[in-house]
Order: sequence, then C-alpha cells, then structure tokens
Amino acid sequence: MSAAEETGGEITSLSNDVFLIFAPYPDSTGFVGRITKRFKGLQVRWVKSSASPLVPPKAEDLDAKEWDGVTLLATFMPPPAEFLSKVRFVQLTTAGIDRWPGHAIYQDDRVTFATSNGCHATQIAEWVIGAWLMHQHAFLTYAANMKTGTWQSPFTAKVQDSTGMRIGILGYGAIGRQCARLAKVLGMEVYAYTRSERATPESRKDDSYCVPGTGDPDGLLPAKWFHGAAKEDVNNFLGQDLDLLVISLPLTSETRQILSHEQFEILSKKKTFVANIARGGHINQDALIKALEIEQIRGAALDVTDPEPLPSDHPLWKAPNLIITPHISWKTDALFGRLLHLMELNLEKLATGQPLINVVNRQLHY
Amino acid sequence: MSAAEETGGEITSLSNDVFLIFAPYPDSTGFVGRITKRFKGLQVRWVKSSASPLVPPKAEDLDAKEWDGVTLLATFMPPPAEFLSKVRFVQLTTAGIDRWPGHAIYQDDRVTFATSNGCHATQIAEWVIGAWLMHQHAFLTYAANMKTGTWQSPFTAKVQDSTGMRIGILGYGAIGRQCARLAKVLGMEVYAYTRSERATPESRKDDSYCVPGTGDPDGLLPAKWFHGAAKEDVNNFLGQDLDLLVISLPLTSETRQILSHEQFEILSKKKTFVANIARGGHINQDALIKALEIEQIRGAALDVTDPEPLPSDHPLWKAPNLIITPHISWKTDALFGRLLHLMELNLEKLATGQPLINVVNRQLHY
Repeated sequence: MSAAEETGGEITSLSNDVFLIFAPYPDSTGFVGRITKRFKGLQVRWVKSSASPLVPPKAEDLDAKEWDGVTLLATFMPPPAEFLSKVRFVQLTTAGIDRWPGHAIYQDDRVTFATSNGCHATQIAEWVIGAWLMHQHAFLTYAANMKTGTWQSPFTAKVQDSTGMRIGILGYGAIGRQCARLAKVLGMEVYAYTRSERATPESRKDDSYCVPGTGDPDGLLPAKWFHGAAKEDVNNFLGQDLDLLVISLPLTSETRQILSHEQFEILSKKKTFVANIARGGHINQDALIKALEIEQIRGAALDVTDPEPLPSDHPLWKAPNLIITPHISWKTDALFGRLLHLMELNLEKLATGQPLINVVNRQLHY
Repeated sequence: MSAAEETGGEITSLSNDVFLIFAPYPDSTGFVGRITKRFKGLQVRWVKSSASPLVPPKAEDLDAKEWDGVTLLATFMPPPAEFLSKVRFVQLTTAGIDRWPGHAIYQDDRVTFATSNGCHATQIAEWVIGAWLMHQHAFLTYAANMKTGTWQSPFTAKVQDSTGMRIGILGYGAIGRQCARLAKVLGMEVYAYTRSERATPESRKDDSYCVPGTGDPDGLLPAKWFHGAAKEDVNNFLGQDLDLLVISLPLTSETRQILSHEQFEILSKKKTFVANIARGGHINQDALIKALEIEQIRGAALDVTDPEPLPSDHPLWKAPNLIITPHISWKTDALFGRLLHLMELNLEKLATGQPLINVVNRQLHY
C-alpha cells in the first residue's frame, strides 16, 4: 500500500505551488503521477540531474524553464540561489545540512528546510554493527588467510562476544537509536550522549522519520544519558569504559574534531573501537592514525574522511585495524522509496498545516 | 555473584562421586575449590590435558591414577572407554555429539550425556550476522580497495539493507534462536525449521542453556514454522524466498549433505546467502563451489568444512563470494565461564534429582 492510499483523499491547498524533484535518477515508480493526482492543482516536475550528483550544480547545468516558479524543492545538492527565488520549502535528501549554511536561501528564515534524517538509519546501523562484528570476529584476518589456504589453529583465536559490553553513542538521533537497538540485542549496555539535557521521558523522544519497528523513537534503550556542549562533557562521556563508540553527530563548529589526541588518550583505557558514519571533520585524522598505530584503540571504521575522496597516497589508508568505506553507509535499494515517502508525508503536512518532519533548526544547524 | 552464591547451600548427595574436569586450560577461577565446598564429600579433580585438544586423547596421554573411580566427567574430546568404567554422567563442552556415537560409554544407556548446547549461542549468532552484514555491505571489497588507496565512487555501490528480508533457520535450537533474535531487529522475517512438528506453544519452547536475555527460549519470533525429516520437507523450506539461510542442525545420517546440487538449484531463485556454523558434512562442497561460481547463491560463510583443517590446496579456498573461518565461531572469552556455570547447574540438578539441562537424546543423537 502506498502512502497515498494509506492517508487517502485529495488535497487542494497546494494548488498555487510548483514542486520540483531534482534527482540523479528518473521517476521509476510513478511518483509524479501519484502526487499530481493527490494534490490537486500542484505542478510537479521531476528533473533528472545531468551533472555529477557529487558536486553542486552550476547555473549552466540547469534549464531555467524547468526551474521557473518553483516553490517546493527536493534536492541532494544546493542549486544556485538564482533558481530558487520563489522557494518556500526545501526537502533535502541528505541527513546533514553542511553543504547549505553559506547559501542565500538557507539564510532566508522564510524558507523551511527539512532533512532526510531517519531514512538512512537502518542501513547505517547495519554498517556500524557489521564493521564492529567484522573486527571483533577477525573476519579480515581469515579473509587474508584464504588467499594462502591457511587454516589457522582455532586455539589461537581470541574473541570477545558483545554480551556485557558497552556502546556509547555520540549523538542520539535516528541513526544512533537504531545502532542502540541492534547493540541491545547483542547484549550491550547503551550509553547515549546528546547536546542538550534529556531529563524527562518527553525530551528523550525523537520525532524524525523512522522506519516502523526500528530505532528507539521513545528513547527507552539507554541505561544512562549524558549531555553537554563543552569539551569536559564529551571527555567525561568518552571515559565511560566504552567498548564501541559511534559518532552520529551533525558537523558543526562545536563538533569539528571532537575526537583528537586528548580524546584518544581517554579512549585508550578501554581501547574503544571507533565507528564514524557522520562526517570526516569530526576526527583529527593524524590523531586517529597515531591512536591506531600505538594501539590506543583496538580499531576503527570510517565511512567518512577529510577530504573526500581520500587521496590515494593519504596515510590513513595504511593505518592498522581500520576499515574505510567511501561514504556509502547510507546506500540501500530501499532508500529512494523512503525518501519519496518522506517527501509525500511532508507535502501532506505542508498542505494541512501540521508540523513538518525533520525541520532544520537554523540555530543548531541540524 | 557466582552460581553457587545464587543457588546457595551445601549439597551432600554426591558424596560418593568423583568429578573430573578434563580441560585444555588450568582452573583459573577457583572452580574446584568452590565445587568441593558446595558439594560435601564430592571429590573434584581438574586435569589439564597435555595432548592436543583437537584429537581424542590416547591411553598413554592419560595418568590412570587421576582417572581412578571417576563417576562424573566433563570433557571436550572422548577419552578411551577403559578410563570411564564407573562414569554415570558426561558433561560435554561441545554442542554436538558427533565424536561419540562409536564410543562404548555412549552406547551404554545408563550413562547420561549432556551437551554444552546454548553456551555458544551468542558468539555464533554474532558470527552469522557479522558474516551476513559483511557480505551485504561489501566490506571485503572496500578492504581490498584500501591496499591501493582506491576511493570507489559511492554511486557504484549497490546495497540492500535487511529490512523486509527473510531469514530461514534450519534447526531452531539455541544458536538458531539467537540468530533469529538478531535478524528480527534488523527487520527480517524469521522462518524456522525443526525436525519434529512444533504445533503448540509448549512444543516451541527450548530448554537448553540460555544466556539470560538472549535467544528465543519461548519460540515467539518465527513468523512461520516448518518441519519434517524428508528431503521434500527440506526442499519446501529452502524454496521460501530466503535471503539468508542458517544451518544450525546437528549432523546425523539424516542431515548429512542436506544441501547439495538440487538444493542450491532451489536456493538460486532468491540467490540465498548460506551460513553454515554446524558441521562441514551438512554441505556437498562440490555443489557449493559450483553454486558460488555460477552465482546460484549470492555468497556463503562457512565456519566448518569437510575435512578440517581444510587442505591448503582445496578448491573451496578459491570459491568466489565466500568467507571461511577455521571452526572458531564458538570462541569467546566468556565461553569458559558459561561452561563452568552449566556444569555447576547440572551437578546441582544431578544431586537434587531434577531433570538435567541439555541431556542427549540417544535416538536422535542430539
């Protein structure tokens, strides 16, 4: 059943709007047809981007006719501001907004921005737990042994299962909550860290998009909550004997290089495994390389680096006990369907005057 | 709190017994002292095996004095029958009994055997789900790319997350149940297969040793149950559009080569990923190699092969989309503590006339 069928009915209050979906893929599921039918009078345009989806499109990449009069936009990269003069709502297909702060439209408070926060949670949490288990069970060593046909004596293997271990989640949003859910069934204790205090049950809730049956929307899984914006608060959290640390924070001036030499020193007590699926800028990479080389930490998994792509001669590639993937943890065949579902939910809320899902807070930049 | 403290009190009814723990490790946790104190009059001996723990000990490896009068035995490998003439109970530290059927003591119905079923469930389930996620998220490809410093374009990655997928568990015992628990939070639907029918809630329970808070002791997780001992029953199960198939069966004459050419043909419909953590004999390895080479299945993970160790020139090492580990999925630092806990629980039940945990059914050989 599609979201349209679930929620039913025609809606007329977007009849003066023009909705443009700017995507690297064509409309393969009949989204435009469905939305046009449901929102009477809404003009819906699907524009397949011709330039690389990895860089913001330039004016010459775009056909001005297609962008004429657009009021509602769904996009991955920021198009030039001159194409967006009438836009009042931007649905991002990214979870972060770090490509937007300098953009004129982002600086205009009348324009509402929503992220795709939550659409990526299940696959990213799988990536985190998969990387963790791959490390703990030494799969890369065994994969290397296969090349030489080496059957290593089972009695040399040293494995700790996750039962009774502790996961610390730096940034307890949609992704962190699904990591918590998976870690919990592995028998781990969950410690959560948020910027602002979450003292009440109500404050522990998360209202971002959530695939039904996943995550921890009510904030019930953590055994302990930590908070703060100061370095001391972060350091205190990192000192909580964490076996696995997940960085699932937005990148802001406060969180840039949140892990550096001092923090790896703190993590060395438990040789915490570090998984970063947020942004490369969260980690001082020289400090990470050193921490891996001198075994301050047992290992790390990075889906993000600084810069991206990581140059082929960068020393990070050679650091021990590290897996790097090229910013793909968000990928899944299911993602596009979830993004379309979120867009439709937000159009409906826009049309009926309800609070939108995943609205960006311009003060906090997430 | 130790199990002794939990259950409390002295027990005198084993005062004519001699309990020998034959282990590849020394008694590092004071187990002998604790058990001697708790079970008044019970003679407790801990014998560290000097021969390789991977082969059954020969008579000349053993000191007859230490084995004199032993009535209760805990062991990994079967010692010669001549040392076991007074034994009435054998606590195995393995989950399977396939090393015992030809043994004189095993053929004596007066001797009760218990396996260590359940002590290995958490780590083996981690191994299964870790291998599955490693495959689904192509971690081995990215690990290989690191050697050349290659940042593969994220837009070439094709990943399916587990949400909405289906896991089939061939043998729904302690290990299979923890696999189900982990798969369930990944958003997978669980299909269970057992030899005998489990039509009632009572029959769906599993009373093997269970780490608290893990597994599915009440059998509540499967969306659908299947059963049977005939090939047609197995084939019907394999045809249920499984994304992931876990083999967690005992090895018996009925289950030997339960996956062969015909079965891989059935699995080709969904290109099922196959994880075998039971015994190498469950799979016809020529059929598996062919299934991987012609991509009837998307991949496989084997912790067990036939024979073990797998010879270095065996073609299985070179099969594509396969990870082999040297029968280590059961390993964890926590295992020994769980085995000792189980031994103590079974001594207590033996002493107080309660049904033991994990008693072997001699008809079914598990």
